[in-house]
Amino acid sequence: MADKILMGHGSGGRMMHRLVRDLIAPAFGMTTLADAALFDFPAGGRPAVTTDSYVVSPIFFPGGDIGELAVCGTVNDLAMMGARPLCLTAGFILEEGLLLEDLKRVVSSMAETARRAGVSIVAGDTKVVDRGKCDAIFINTAGVGVVPEGLDLSPERILAGDAVIVSGPCGSHGIAIMAERNGLSFDPPLVSDTAPLNGLVELMLEQAEGIRVLRDPTRGGLATTIKEIAVEGSRRIVLEEKSVPVLPGVQGACGLLGLDPLYVANEGVLLGIVDGAEAESLVQAMHSHPLGGSAAVVGLVGEEEDGKVILSTIAGGTRLLDMLTGEQLPRIC
Amino acid sequence: MADKILMGHGSGGRMMHRLVRDLIAPAFGMTTLADAALFDFPAGGRPAVTTDSYVVSPIFFPGGDIGELAVCGTVNDLAMMGARPLCLTAGFILEEGLLLEDLKRVVSSMAETARRAGVSIVAGDTKVVDRGKCDAIFINTAGVGVVPEGLDLSPERILAGDAVIVSGPCGSHGIAIMAERNGLSFDPPLVSDTAPLNGLVELMLEQAEGIRVLRDPTRGGLATTIKEIAVEGSRRIVLEEKSVPVLPGVQGACGLLGLDPLYVANEGVLLGIVDGAEAESLVQAMHSHPLGGSAAVVGLVGEEEDGKVILSTIAGGTRLLDMLTGEQLPRIC
Repeated sequence: MADKILMGHGSGGRMMHRLVRDLIAPAFGMTTLADAALFDFPAGGRPAVTTDSYVVSPIFFPGGDIGELAVCGTVNDLAMMGARPLCLTAGFILEEGLLLEDLKRVVSSMAETARRAGVSIVAGDTKVVDRGKCDAIFINTAGVGVVPEGLDLSPERILAGDAVIVSGPCGSHGIAIMAERNGLSFDPPLVSDTAPLNGLVELMLEQAEGIRVLRDPTRGGLATTIKEIAVEGSRRIVLEEKSVPVLPGVQGACGLLGLDPLYVANEGVLLGIVDGAEAESLVQAMHSHPLGGSAAVVGLVGEEEDGKVILSTIAGGTRLLDMLTGEQLPRIC
Repeated sequence: MADKILMGHGSGGRMMHRLVRDLIAPAFGMTTLADAALFDFPAGGRPAVTTDSYVVSPIFFPGGDIGELAVCGTVNDLAMMGARPLCLTAGFILEEGLLLEDLKRVVSSMAETARRAGVSIVAGDTKVVDRGKCDAIFINTAGVGVVPEGLDLSPERILAGDAVIVSGPCGSHGIAIMAERNGLSFDPPLVSDTAPLNGLVELMLEQAEGIRVLRDPTRGGLATTIKEIAVEGSRRIVLEEKSVPVLPGVQGACGLLGLDPLYVANEGVLLGIVDGAEAESLVQAMHSHPLGGSAAVVGLVGEEEDGKVILSTIAGGTRLLDMLTGEQLPRIC
């Protein structure tokens, strides 16, 4: 086998079969990776489906890579619906000239992350485009999951008095990518938070009955996600800047790069709006989970039905938060 | 709104929300296109999932475009399992500078094709990459379908005496793309056969009990697909070249371009291995369907368990057919 991706690897013919048989399928513990596959759907519960394409640059970054990201992002989209992930598909777009060694590293990382999340990759597809027509590798993952009967997470369910919680320190993914892209290194190193959140969500759903909505604040960061919820739920939300966990290194790098950590992407952090009466006990329970060690209450849902988000700043003032405008950090995921 | 895709359209912030709200979602008849969605799964039957990324170049070609292709390809992958398609997801990777008008044309075409196939697009994702890092637009579609209880299509079920049938003229898609890409025009024009085959498959499953396996011979063409089945089913297959329907214009263009229509991609043709006793009546029934007008018996499964495919040529000779080697027609889908 050549050591690089050639156009023939996308032909549908012998070279593609060999690439799938010898490199991709073995990483997933299979003899082949089918175009389409049957899967088991448990009795009870409602099926949910999601998709995401990943175009992160560079494909390897501190704390993760595009393969880990592609599995976590899609698992997390399902988890935010309260769905237990059942299976994933993987669609690869490969650039002619990509090192097979790099592809192998990416698919191994996908397989390892899928194991960690307890989900199977069951079907896939491989396309190759001419050099200069993509950027090393793009991956799409779609996922199917099952939402337990009776569970309905939606911004429309948020109520005055509900609390806003986050599961971990914010902004780490975006800053790790930006640092890598700009050749900056920090001590201690800043690493992406990329992680599958489905286990943490299961724990949360066992602990609390009053979980209204869960979201993973990826592109656009915490601020954009809270604004979306406020608008969709027609409620005002007040966010306490001082309560939002941000690692000191991330805070410092944000200052250096002129970025606001509230708008920087996360890939292993969730935001929840929960019954105010349950918030503290839920946060305590989350502290027992490896991904919930910094969980904190960071805000409150108000009476006003205006969809505004007010930041109560560390300096003691207030300001309106809106969705991210323009593009702060391109190709972060 | 600008008339072109900008990096900000992939930000996760305000510009992306507007693009989805004002251009993508309306084409699909929705107010927004969610990251993830619930869908209904019928009682009985087994769920199946598939994925394909589409990187065809050019994105508009005679007889279709990348949007139509992205819906048909994934619907067809499900149909080839005998699955009724239930829902699709759509992941877009857009190149900075893409005309919004072109994007609109592509998503409208996806919506129209989904209606034709009777399937809904329920969830999506939009990424933007810098100019020169993809090629106008790449689309991934994943699909979920339901396979009727008791139906099991698999190459392992093929038997000596089974017949090989094709549903329509071969090679039209690949030749239409190659002609467009090379600035060749033909009279009458050569158009892609891109079409959703699920309706035809439903008709076939109603008509015949002895359908062993269905495949859509896309990349690699009819020859590669038959070889796959022969190997997976451990049977020899004899293909009658003179019985394979090929449009005269496609045959002529293949001669001109030095291509063998048996290795040229199809996007609206299926190949079936069926009980020999039912083949003729099934082909007759297929003639009543708009996509089955040229359906024909083109070959036979032999006694030998060697996985060979023998072509009985028009000239009266025989030759071994293998999978496509190298890359004949890059980026055909």
